[in-house]
Amino acid sequence: MALINRSLVTFDDLSNGEIEGLFSLADEMSDSINEQFGVCQGRIMASLFFEPSTRTRLSFETAMHRLGGSVISAVDIKATSLAKGESIADMARVVGSYADIIVIRHPWEGAAKVVADYAGVPVINAGDGGHQHPTQTLCDLYTLKKERHTIKGLRIALCGDLKYGRTVHSLAYGLARFDAEDIIFIHGEGLEIPSHVLKKLTREYGGTLHKIPASNLSSLAQLLQGKSLDMFHRARTDGLDVIYMTPSKLPQQTLRPTFELRVDISEGALYISRLQKERVTSATEGTKLKKDYPVIDKKLLNGKDLKSTLIMHPLPRVDELAYEVDADPRSMYFKQAAWGVPVRMALIALLLGTKEISIPREDDSSVPKIDYPVYRRDFGVRCRNLSCVSFNEARYIKPEFKIVDDQPLTLRCVYCEHELQPQYIASSDWHEGRLANKTYHSADTYWVRKIKPENLIIFDSESEAQAWGLPSHYTRAHH
Amino acid sequence: MALINRSLVTFDDLSNGEIEGLFSLADEMSDSINEQFGVCQGRIMASLFFEPSTRTRLSFETAMHRLGGSVISAVDIKATSLAKGESIADMARVVGSYADIIVIRHPWEGAAKVVADYAGVPVINAGDGGHQHPTQTLCDLYTLKKERHTIKGLRIALCGDLKYGRTVHSLAYGLARFDAEDIIFIHGEGLEIPSHVLKKLTREYGGTLHKIPASNLSSLAQLLQGKSLDMFHRARTDGLDVIYMTPSKLPQQTLRPTFELRVDISEGALYISRLQKERVTSATEGTKLKKDYPVIDKKLLNGKDLKSTLIMHPLPRVDELAYEVDADPRSMYFKQAAWGVPVRMALIALLLGTKEISIPREDDSSVPKIDYPVYRRDFGVRCRNLSCVSFNEARYIKPEFKIVDDQPLTLRCVYCEHELQPQYIASSDWHEGRLANKTYHSADTYWVRKIKPENLIIFDSESEAQAWGLPSHYTRAHH
Amino acid sequence: MALINRSLVTFDDLSNGEIEGLFSLADEMSDSINEQFGVCQGRIMASLFFEPSTRTRLSFETAMHRLGGSVISAVDIKATSLAKGESIADMARVVGSYADIIVIRHPWEGAAKVVADYAGVPVINAGDGGHQHPTQTLCDLYTLKKERHTIKGLRIALCGDLKYGRTVHSLAYGLARFDAEDIIFIHGEGLEIPSHVLKKLTREYGGTLHKIPASNLSSLAQLLQGKSLDMFHRARTDGLDVIYMTPSKLPQQTLRPTFELRVDISEGALYISRLQKERVTSATEGTKLKKDYPVIDKKLLNGKDLKSTLIMHPLPRVDELAYEVDADPRSMYFKQAAWGVPVRMALIALLLGTKEISIPREDDSSVPKIDYPVYRRDFGVRCRNLSCVSFNEARYIKPEFKIVDDQPLTLRCVYCEHELQPQYIASSDWHEGRLANKTYHSADTYWVRKIKPENLIIFDSESEAQAWGLPSHYTRAHH
Repeated sequence: MALINRSLVTFDDLSNGEIEGLFSLADEMSDSINEQFGVCQGRIMASLFFEPSTRTRLSFETAMHRLGGSVISAVDIKATSLAKGESIADMARVVGSYADIIVIRHPWEGAAKVVADYAGVPVINAGDGGHQHPTQTLCDLYTLKKERHTIKGLRIALCGDLKYGRTVHSLAYGLARFDAEDIIFIHGEGLEIPSHVLKKLTREYGGTLHKIPASNLSSLAQLLQGKSLDMFHRARTDGLDVIYMTPSKLPQQTLRPTFELRVDISEGALYISRLQKERVTSATEGTKLKKDYPVIDKKLLNGKDLKSTLIMHPLPRVDELAYEVDADPRSMYFKQAAWGVPVRMALIALLLGTKEISIPREDDSSVPKIDYPVYRRDFGVRCRNLSCVSFNEARYIKPEFKIVDDQPLTLRCVYCEHELQPQYIASSDWHEGRLANKTYHSADTYWVRKIKPENLIIFDSESEAQAWGLPSHYTRAHH
Repeated sequence: MALINRSLVTFDDLSNGEIEGLFSLADEMSDSINEQFGVCQGRIMASLFFEPSTRTRLSFETAMHRLGGSVISAVDIKATSLAKGESIADMARVVGSYADIIVIRHPWEGAAKVVADYAGVPVINAGDGGHQHPTQTLCDLYTLKKERHTIKGLRIALCGDLKYGRTVHSLAYGLARFDAEDIIFIHGEGLEIPSHVLKKLTREYGGTLHKIPASNLSSLAQLLQGKSLDMFHRARTDGLDVIYMTPSKLPQQTLRPTFELRVDISEGALYISRLQKERVTSATEGTKLKKDYPVIDKKLLNGKDLKSTLIMHPLPRVDELAYEVDADPRSMYFKQAAWGVPVRMALIALLLGTKEISIPREDDSSVPKIDYPVYRRDFGVRCRNLSCVSFNEARYIKPEFKIVDDQPLTLRCVYCEHELQPQYIASSDWHEGRLANKTYHSADTYWVRKIKPENLIIFDSESEAQAWGLPSHYTRAHH
Repeated sequence: MALINRSLVTFDDLSNGEIEGLFSLADEMSDSINEQFGVCQGRIMASLFFEPSTRTRLSFETAMHRLGGSVISAVDIKATSLAKGESIADMARVVGSYADIIVIRHPWEGAAKVVADYAGVPVINAGDGGHQHPTQTLCDLYTLKKERHTIKGLRIALCGDLKYGRTVHSLAYGLARFDAEDIIFIHGEGLEIPSHVLKKLTREYGGTLHKIPASNLSSLAQLLQGKSLDMFHRARTDGLDVIYMTPSKLPQQTLRPTFELRVDISEGALYISRLQKERVTSATEGTKLKKDYPVIDKKLLNGKDLKSTLIMHPLPRVDELAYEVDADPRSMYFKQAAWGVPVRMALIALLLGTKEISIPREDDSSVPKIDYPVYRRDFGVRCRNLSCVSFNEARYIKPEFKIVDDQPLTLRCVYCEHELQPQYIASSDWHEGRLANKTYHSADTYWVRKIKPENLIIFDSESEAQAWGLPSHYTRAHH
């Protein structure tokens, strides 16, 4: 099976079988890393990093050099023509005419999709704002696979900054796809996992979500002692209780043990990440968030529940992971980083088509995507996420959404995957002159199901709806 | 013919025949781009970019990698020893002892000449302030050549920021050298082409300059509809009428059609560039200039005059070229960028001597340079251009000029090519003690022709002249 | 002899024999520079520059490319994960899992040692703050060796910023090790050589230090005419007289000629460096220091004393070395820079183990290090140098010192090599409960020799000592 000329923008761009094949190739390359030098000789990778990074950029560049390829790179947005006002699309087209493959990190969510749309060569998303960082997820899953042989049935706790930490979101999707048993979200105060992530998990991967009442937290209390425990206690009184998600694919779901047992992750993994300070907007908020951030240290690891738990971290760490833990055999984070090289070598070679993988027919399952109707118009509703590439490059990007729900009407931006629930709709039937009066409606009326998706017009605000049409007597009743 | 160990500082460093040969090699390399990997193996290119750039730098680095060579680069002036006060000359000598070829972009005009003077290896100017960017011109001409098979007889409109846009200046010289029929300058308000560029065109390439009165602009008015037309209208009332230049080499000049026909460039090209905001000194000036900047959009391209006109742009674009034009087959700008790679591959291989080109004897014509007398002294007149390298590195650079005219006396700086008309002169005959009184003269007296060029002393100001000598009774009469 | 998997953090990491072997390999590589392309093919060098540099970084990267290896680089601390709060140790472990060899420049003194401690691959110190820059010293000594055939018996004047100029400190040690006869320190005003450097020279290389009274400076006065002479005059009245150091290894020491002869360095070298402005803390101090900085120009070089003196400079220069000197055959500084490439090629190939060197048995002498006792504790005294890596990365670095003297008690930080003289001590015998009263003592009592080094506890301040134990009646007497 060839992946030639494909791009990796979100983790969903690869099927489970493709990922398993990629992992086999990574194993092979890892075992003979010095014999891969000719695999991509003469090929050029563009490494475009518009946000700080050492690890990811150097990992990709190392991977390309180990394959014998060359690298051109642009690492600082201020030193590039983007500072002259150039669009991402133009940059993508030009760099795509130079290089054979592009690796892009950018602060705007959905930027990698735009690059992939315009470049004409394979594109790898190395992190687009708070959206996704799919190769980090590949490395995380590869580490679990290496250490536990399978992801199926594992119990994983995701811990720390679950709000701004994109690696955690991607990993949650990846774990759900590979049938992990439990994913326990242990967030720092004020850093809970966004609802759109939880919604996507339940809707698309069939999981069930449980909110654990404070009174049931006794064993978690043992799990996160001292400072961490304090934090959790506060979180509960604020109603920000621990949440965990289980993929419903598993038939054993109803047979699941009680909560007290469920938080024993000694055969699973504890994954913590730093507070993504660069995404926190105010300094005072940052200080507050930091105060109650969970910490993994020697004392915590003495707990019976964590006897053989893998300790994972995407790095860089700040204070949430004590240096004294480094020598512990459960520590996986430097291995995670090291395995990034063979995983990325395999990915680059596959997308450039210099390597192929064979996948047993029965494993060649794609991720079960739902075929949502698409909404795309020049006017009306736009993505409200200020970090979305469609908001920042509105000059040439037309808003585009998937209609993921109609009760209430919910749109998911195809760029940043943020969801929004607009209040007003209309039908283009009228707009095109077939009806005399341009009527608009509240989105929570039966009209949302009556108007065909291809005729639907959706507005951000009532004033926008009014500017477009005449007020409807239907909607007035709802005010 | 070998170009080994030559440098490309200004476009004039290559003869027409050499350029044609380079284009043939670029064709060849373009046709077999993956077979060039061994051409420069083991050679090192230093890529020194002291001004923002993605396109040009990555294009050069791609070219070197495609040839199998290696690249060392310094991309941010703040991260280099220049921030410690090092001179360009020292940097050139040191980097010249590391690398086999140097590519330099620098904000100071003439900086590339200084690097070439000191490096001891071939140097390519990748843009020196507002002065020149000769490989951009090579790419522009190569694109015209590819699409129109010849440049001779083409009618080209240069549009937009003609004041700060160095690519436009270089291109104008290039078009003149290759016998384009008409070059039409359509400037944004306040962004007219500098007089020294026009002077050089007429003096050295034998062109005739026409100012088109506002009343004759009817077809241009059709050409640039809407916003662009407005701009032109304002420009005309300010006396900043459209200017176009024709090389006088062409015998057909006198047979030229009327203006209305002349502005039909449907078989030619329309070349627009962005406003070079980074060279505009005040923010308010920038805002004003931007307001009336010409724009190429779908509506404009519907005009009959532009039916098969090539739309060219050096990129990056800002707002002057609408995204809706990208899909139009007349759009050449992404091709221009892509062809930068084979053109630069050919250039690098030729300067490193790993490739040679054959030129038919009859084509090996150099650009017809005029042999102006040179003026070079430790004291007296200096280049007044604040961006000139000779002004900024006065520690070790002696001012040097070509005396391009004596009525009025006009000096052209050999570094930045800016021209100036100094007011006072004297003769070194007296200075060396042969005359008792040190007399100085106004530059617009007959003395400017009487004093031999090798004896001429030229002053910036009367006070400087007075400090040097005694006032002349000849010159007093002129005050 | 193989140097495989060794690091070069300080100049003392290589024995004299190893350095001689490295110089032979550099000779060999220099003679056939284009035949070294396969030596390191497939190997990756990480080039991590957290401080401005063109020369050193490009020199290392050139060296690796000439050997056929690949380079990954991070050049701006702001663009890396260190800006997210990552430790040097974590970065070292991660990059060490990517690359085969690491070159590091960092503003903190001792940072390269930390990288070498954690990376797991060979590490080369390319400058750690004001501490060391050992490959610069290798290039300096290689230049002397090339030009004078031997360093033994040379008389070298080190001139300029002797306070902040790390290259000068390293070079002084190198010259002492290779038995230079005299090292004359000619400092700019306020820029005298730090006492810890002089102490290390005398203690470890057996030199004798002479202070030359102002009245004996007549021939130095001839040596440094004009401005430079002025500076020296002022220096003397301030009691900052010229200092020179002679290694006592030489048996001829007592037969040394008078001072007047000694300052004739016509067969030696004059080594000047720029003012390290980036290490000067206040702007006014910088201006003051600059005013009286020594300058080497044509006039100075006309002096008989300097007839065939080599003029050396680590570059970049600012104003201390006139451009008019460049054409002088005594100028060595561009050669110094050029020879950096083969020297670094040899070093990289040796540390990667792709080349070996043979050393005659009699030359395989290590530098005669003194086996000082080591002091290492979690509490008590810490390095007081604000630029020391152990101060800045205290999260995980335990303070560690060599006890280099006990009268007065003097500790040398193993990271930055700064020395300090703490005032209070105690014994861990008592701390571990064997004595009822926790007593501390003044460091200048006999207790400093009575307490075994392994039991010694050393405090920064009396308040710290008091916090730890009870006041001692022994120490009170000394207050």
